[in-house]
Amino acid sequence: MDVTAAGNESFVIGVDYGTLSGRAVVVRVRDGKEVGSGVFEYPHAVVSEALPADTAGSNTIRLPKEWALQVPNDYRDVLRNAVPAAIADAGIDASAVVGIATDFTACTMVPVKADGTPLNELPEFANRPHAYVKLWRHHAAQTQADRITSLADEWGESWLPRYGGLISSEWEFAKGLELLEDDPEAYAAMDRWVEAADWIVWQLCGNYVRNACTAGYKGIYQDGNYPSEEFLAALNPGFKDFVSAKLEHTIGRLGDAAGYLTAEAAAWTGLPEGIAVAVGNVDAHVTAPAAKAVAPGQLVAIMGTSTCHVMNGSELREVPGMCGVVDGGIVDGLWGYEAGQSGVGDIFGWFVKYGVPPEYHEAAAALGLGIHEYLTRLASDQAIGEHGLIALDWHSGNRSVLVDHELSGVVVGQTLATRPEDIYRALLEATAYGTRTIVEAFRDSGVPVREFIVAGGLLKNELLMQIYADITGLQLSTIGSSQGPALGSAIHAAVAAGRYPDIRAAAAAMGSAPGAVYTPIPDNVAAYEELFREYRVLHDYFGRGTNDVMHRLKAIQRKVRPGLGAVGPAAEVDAAERAEEVSA
Amino acid sequence: MDVTAAGNESFVIGVDYGTLSGRAVVVRVRDGKEVGSGVFEYPHAVVSEALPADTAGSNTIRLPKEWALQVPNDYRDVLRNAVPAAIADAGIDASAVVGIATDFTACTMVPVKADGTPLNELPEFANRPHAYVKLWRHHAAQTQADRITSLADEWGESWLPRYGGLISSEWEFAKGLELLEDDPEAYAAMDRWVEAADWIVWQLCGNYVRNACTAGYKGIYQDGNYPSEEFLAALNPGFKDFVSAKLEHTIGRLGDAAGYLTAEAAAWTGLPEGIAVAVGNVDAHVTAPAAKAVAPGQLVAIMGTSTCHVMNGSELREVPGMCGVVDGGIVDGLWGYEAGQSGVGDIFGWFVKYGVPPEYHEAAAALGLGIHEYLTRLASDQAIGEHGLIALDWHSGNRSVLVDHELSGVVVGQTLATRPEDIYRALLEATAYGTRTIVEAFRDSGVPVREFIVAGGLLKNELLMQIYADITGLQLSTIGSSQGPALGSAIHAAVAAGRYPDIRAAAAAMGSAPGAVYTPIPDNVAAYEELFREYRVLHDYFGRGTNDVMHRLKAIQRKVRPGLGAVGPAAEVDAAERAEEVSA
Repeated sequence: MDVTAAGNESFVIGVDYGTLSGRAVVVRVRDGKEVGSGVFEYPHAVVSEALPADTAGSNTIRLPKEWALQVPNDYRDVLRNAVPAAIADAGIDASAVVGIATDFTACTMVPVKADGTPLNELPEFANRPHAYVKLWRHHAAQTQADRITSLADEWGESWLPRYGGLISSEWEFAKGLELLEDDPEAYAAMDRWVEAADWIVWQLCGNYVRNACTAGYKGIYQDGNYPSEEFLAALNPGFKDFVSAKLEHTIGRLGDAAGYLTAEAAAWTGLPEGIAVAVGNVDAHVTAPAAKAVAPGQLVAIMGTSTCHVMNGSELREVPGMCGVVDGGIVDGLWGYEAGQSGVGDIFGWFVKYGVPPEYHEAAAALGLGIHEYLTRLASDQAIGEHGLIALDWHSGNRSVLVDHELSGVVVGQTLATRPEDIYRALLEATAYGTRTIVEAFRDSGVPVREFIVAGGLLKNELLMQIYADITGLQLSTIGSSQGPALGSAIHAAVAAGRYPDIRAAAAAMGSAPGAVYTPIPDNVAAYEELFREYRVLHDYFGRGTNDVMHRLKAIQRKVRPGLGAVGPAAEVDAAERAEEVSA
Repeated sequence: MDVTAAGNESFVIGVDYGTLSGRAVVVRVRDGKEVGSGVFEYPHAVVSEALPADTAGSNTIRLPKEWALQVPNDYRDVLRNAVPAAIADAGIDASAVVGIATDFTACTMVPVKADGTPLNELPEFANRPHAYVKLWRHHAAQTQADRITSLADEWGESWLPRYGGLISSEWEFAKGLELLEDDPEAYAAMDRWVEAADWIVWQLCGNYVRNACTAGYKGIYQDGNYPSEEFLAALNPGFKDFVSAKLEHTIGRLGDAAGYLTAEAAAWTGLPEGIAVAVGNVDAHVTAPAAKAVAPGQLVAIMGTSTCHVMNGSELREVPGMCGVVDGGIVDGLWGYEAGQSGVGDIFGWFVKYGVPPEYHEAAAALGLGIHEYLTRLASDQAIGEHGLIALDWHSGNRSVLVDHELSGVVVGQTLATRPEDIYRALLEATAYGTRTIVEAFRDSGVPVREFIVAGGLLKNELLMQIYADITGLQLSTIGSSQGPALGSAIHAAVAAGRYPDIRAAAAAMGSAPGAVYTPIPDNVAAYEELFREYRVLHDYFGRGTNDVMHRLKAIQRKVRPGLGAVGPAAEVDAAERAEEVSA
């Protein structure tokens, strides 16, 4: 189907920008085969305690709690290192590469000058924390987010329901308002407030194009509009022109070319100048085509520390408690729905770290197993309901469908006979009940879920996968590729390069075949039906205001421990990269 | 005040019969000073798997689950060994001993011939499990107990409310009905069904006297009557004459002499023939005089694996969810109230065994601390409410005030920041909330609690004691003696010997001075007030039928794991000896 310059195969590059590193994958255009990869860890990783001396000078600039910054040049270094490494690993001639695409954590924001230079690269701003990249997990804009949400609620803003009624502290407006209020000089000096997903594309092709995905999910861009000047002025008079002066820009459709590789970027990467550079994308959303799941009703769950659910729908519906619905947010021409569970693998990880006694660790080691594996093996021997427990999976709050970060975890039913594997299994099940709750919310809103596809590190746990199939009653398949986001980006690169007419066609040809398929077992489905009813009763009791004990406990906590700040370390963990950081 | 044969001090012996051993203490009559002690472990301990070959012959007789037997001659061996050892330890002349008294686990039952010979000591019954002592924690009579409770409820029996609406599988009637139905021959051969507390007294003085304490708390003896023949016949026609043929007997008041030491028992013990032998007693109840807590309103909590609460009142009230109220059940002339928490120290022990990771064990060891001590130290640094948790202390069910063994534990409020010391502290607090709930039930029923006295192994945990003082709002003192029950028995011996006019006077002179006093700290009281409200809301939600999820989870458990049998290992743990088995 493809003919390269050398009369042979042609290839595309997908680059997945995660929280700690960037990963480049070389993919064959014809069939999506991954032929080589390279990784580069950001030299400055996540900057959360003090500005790095090599960028900010010799004075130590300490950062407040809840901060998480990055250094934008680290992203360029990925292009300089991971891409050539991937080409070398593939053993192909770089001239056979016809396009490149990237995906990024989101919402990760770069304050830049008009030419795209990050503010922190100006000497006069190098020692100003607000001049750096605000990583997705920078959580210092909570008060701004709360003000945006409550004003939107008060004013009845039509866009609020599209985000489940909650604007996150991680998103563009909250972080922008924080910048204005906490460092007005940096705000004034900033010409544009740019998603890192778009900034890296700008570095590659020299054009700033704002991708439809983050504009919609993180930038409150709905039906062609942003929040009004009146609304912004009511938040802060100085914020009135935030959209017109700093934010709004041409929107690029996913899969389109944003431009063509510049000579400078060609030199960084070793790729041919002038090849297609795709519009930017987000790690979670770009995984859908990698899993061949771009048709309406195909729900992709990227399961790791947290779970991000993405699904296309042919029509706009307001699904209660979703994270966002965006026109063309996953695939151009369809409505992209996103939902999330703020704690999944990190709950299992927390339990394994703090709730399992020495003998279990010793027994696992004696069998040559990891502790997750060992507990899973013990839990696998149980009949459904044998442990006598029901848990609520809200240790990091609840993103969907309750949209309440002040909720917390519950375990009901412990006796002196309860063992760690019992609690472990109950926590696995609790996250599956959480997923089913989301699936039902979609279904009840007229957005039926027909298939369930899992990507992310947790797909390795077969017990967990079978539990998800049994509890949701849906056939579950896992993505075959271990590089879901990078493969998804490569698919976008192939479309941007004109090698396929659209993402759907490219996904069909290049997407990964399922790694494994789990079919619901009728007896298990029936057994879990009974337990899910119990989950839902507790879910509504603790989550919908019948007993607000969780809120009151957090309020007491903050009162007696004022330094606590925002509650929970992972309020908005919602993207694929974070998902892949954890294995179980 | 006292003049001995030698013109010097006089002494009494208290013997505390626990689950695994008997402990004798020599106490000075004048002031209660404990001058020597001796312990003897039962050679056959608890017989729960097979009858011992040395008593039952060479064929192995296996026991079903839930069984717990003992061998009565082990109790005689305590007299032969522990008493002489205590005398030797005290370094006194045995002729200075003027009386002996015993306390026992309850309800522990011995089937005997008319002369007191235990059935198992007859060759033809030696290999019959039902011929042995049924220890308090023999739990195989649950179905019989359930039938007694439900029939009494149906018939509106006036005695049922005096036991919180529940007749235990551990008690005389349930175990007696089990014996009739499971081994009718043994039942027919048995002339009397005797509390071990009274059997040992019978061995000492040759008289069978039924003590008022167990007759009331375990034998459904109320207002001078037992359950009627009609009632018994409705349970089983063969059970109709159970009371008249096997059970009823002269009731002895606590503190009275049941008789005088026989020549045979004098030979076993080395004590003078003819000294006073007191009416039998129960380990928990006999602790009250040892703690000088025999006046109305003085609540004694024997805190160990479980907690038993005993308190005198001047009038009869029906307190919802009490374990029993008995005329003269603790001190003659007052109403003795008993309540209980079925899980306390065993919940802490369970958590420490199964819920604490290796690093904590290593850190504790490095500091030379036990793991309980280490967690307590970490938990002590917290402000009240800082952990953000509320737990329900029902891992072994709830004895008072809900009287529901099918309830289970709950922890609400866990986040990824929750640490083992947080849960540990929440569990400590949960048991204190449980105690406060009992204190309030007494108060609301017109039986006010004025003082709170703690005995049992848990009194060593100072954090726990302060938490109890702060949560109950009561001044708390701990018993000074580490041999509470044996000292309490010694006090009874002194009264039986005529050295004091009554228990009250003897307790005043001989009872232990407080070991420590904990005063409620007003700020803490206020902080806990808020948290206790949360506990009560959850208590009523899960415990009073709003959400019967715990019952349903247990039903599912039994369905999928039929071998499970009765739920929880400690359904009726309610006496001091069990309390003292655990330290924290």
